[in-house]
Amino acid sequence: VEIGELGEFGLIARLTQGLKTRKDVALGVGDDAAVLTPPPGSQLVATCDALVAGQHFTFQTSEPAEIGHKALAVNLSDVAAMGAEPLWALVSLHLPSRLESSTLDALYGGIRALARRFDVAIVGGNITATTGPLTIDITLLGACPTGRAITRAGGQPGDALVLVGTLGAATAGLLVSTERDRLGGVAPEMMARARHAQVAPEPLVETGRALAATGTLHAMIDVSDGLAGDLSHLCAASGVGALLEARALPVDPAAGAIASALGREALTLAITGGEDYALLCAVAPESVAATLAAVTATGAAVSVIGKLTAADEGLRIQLSDGSVASIEASGWDHLRGAWSSPGRGTHPA
Amino acid sequence: VEIGELGEFGLIARLTQGLKTRKDVALGVGDDAAVLTPPPGSQLVATCDALVAGQHFTFQTSEPAEIGHKALAVNLSDVAAMGAEPLWALVSLHLPSRLESSTLDALYGGIRALARRFDVAIVGGNITATTGPLTIDITLLGACPTGRAITRAGGQPGDALVLVGTLGAATAGLLVSTERDRLGGVAPEMMARARHAQVAPEPLVETGRALAATGTLHAMIDVSDGLAGDLSHLCAASGVGALLEARALPVDPAAGAIASALGREALTLAITGGEDYALLCAVAPESVAATLAAVTATGAAVSVIGKLTAADEGLRIQLSDGSVASIEASGWDHLRGAWSSPGRGTHPA
Repeated sequence: VEIGELGEFGLIARLTQGLKTRKDVALGVGDDAAVLTPPPGSQLVATCDALVAGQHFTFQTSEPAEIGHKALAVNLSDVAAMGAEPLWALVSLHLPSRLESSTLDALYGGIRALARRFDVAIVGGNITATTGPLTIDITLLGACPTGRAITRAGGQPGDALVLVGTLGAATAGLLVSTERDRLGGVAPEMMARARHAQVAPEPLVETGRALAATGTLHAMIDVSDGLAGDLSHLCAASGVGALLEARALPVDPAAGAIASALGREALTLAITGGEDYALLCAVAPESVAATLAAVTATGAAVSVIGKLTAADEGLRIQLSDGSVASIEASGWDHLRGAWSSPGRGTHPA
Repeated sequence: VEIGELGEFGLIARLTQGLKTRKDVALGVGDDAAVLTPPPGSQLVATCDALVAGQHFTFQTSEPAEIGHKALAVNLSDVAAMGAEPLWALVSLHLPSRLESSTLDALYGGIRALARRFDVAIVGGNITATTGPLTIDITLLGACPTGRAITRAGGQPGDALVLVGTLGAATAGLLVSTERDRLGGVAPEMMARARHAQVAPEPLVETGRALAATGTLHAMIDVSDGLAGDLSHLCAASGVGALLEARALPVDPAAGAIASALGREALTLAITGGEDYALLCAVAPESVAATLAAVTATGAAVSVIGKLTAADEGLRIQLSDGSVASIEASGWDHLRGAWSSPGRGTHPA
């Protein structure tokens, strides 16, 4: 059955039936607004991010449940990057009338499954019809002890740059679908790993909180627009420059394998590819050991990838031959990418 | 200049420059998430609602600033219906690449102007490109003293139904654009009044808070889907029925004038027309006087329009001849309306 045959209220009831709740949700879906009890002594964090069909995902390359997963994951990553605990989500859907209700059920199921894993309650939302592409717009609220949110500002020259996660796999995952014919020689598990990084990224929520709990972080950002882009955001907010070390960058093995098969440079994927949802932190040199220990305790991969410098030194990278090159700050700019040529990060329509 | 020529970050900087803030905003637009300090002793309310071009508004019938105004106003109305104070908004935009940046500036200006009036800080948001219609998706957060949010549940048989505002004008405003040729005899100020109710509704924020402050409200809902529909929601949540009094319904004078010119029944517009953003409350009979006084002090129009009954009596209306008729519960269902014939409430494409 196509959802155009269901009414708004029937559809909402269908999707939100038996939603998991939390003790701090006084009133969830179904009234004019949700009523939520903030944890005592805490501040709230609030973020919103949207996925648009044909641009951020396609039904050809993602399962519906993966699309739902990713729509929430990208928001969870933002909350993780504040060092906060995610609590409550509002899910706004813009739906074409011809969408099959079973597809929507699976998509929403992907949101629900990830929400459940992180004990996030879906407390509200909205459904509208659209003549355009299916769009999932999620607002996520979280909390952290007052004054303890980790922002992009606060990095200082001399700080070590610590990266949690790996780089390049999500962009390699795009290549899995666009360049499949040329990737016959790549190991299936590397293909699957890259695809998974692209369609169902894993937000580093526990690690973000563990990092914040060390009390030693100067700044943090999630790497969603590409390392170069997000590092430039952190540097701009902190008023500093940065020097990366090429040899230290944790290029994802899937990115390495796929780049190699295509005759591309894995390092470029790692630096400019978006959607890795890694966490990039600035910490004082004397805090590096404690930071690494905190991350390792959560089971995540961690690397020291360079350091912050004076602002006038800009963004640079020391290559493996010892030479130093300037990095173009431009990461993955969603609008330019989407609106100009179908470049890096844009899905085939 | 078309916005496709601007990048995402440039566009965000352009729109959010000099945004008004609040003392409880520790960090606004520009990081991974906003950081907000909830008022002590309070609960939060959270709601989201979206406007889609061609469905909820058109650029032919609304000025860009009115579109922005309405996108925030519909959310403010939901917060008003909880009796809460609006605090913080996240504005998510899905934009066609060919949109003129001056149009976007004016639209966002409409959001900012209304936010400023109600001391709401825009603390976050998102911008994506879309191949579909322009869409404005706003999440609004507010607060009320713990335990004092007014829900749809809690109405009791015997309660008086109190309505703040008037009915039918917003639907009449749709007719102003679709039936203009047949409305030559209607006074210009009535035409303008109806148009204004449709394109730039006034959310009853102060009145909602004043009502909640009386401490006597059993239930409240905003009338966005039509009186019949929203009354049925309140009755369902409260487990009651209702009996309206036709003579007591505050039909907006513009709805009366326009219905009359078209040979339609104004009462039908008043009962089934959506988007009036009135407030409908249930109060014990002994609290009616205090309730009316509280509303009147805010300068809003108020009427006692009927009463709640036992659930098995359903939704009924006493007509002016004394007879009692059943009311169809179906209000304005956004999806059915949008997806089937271009019926009531749907804008011409």
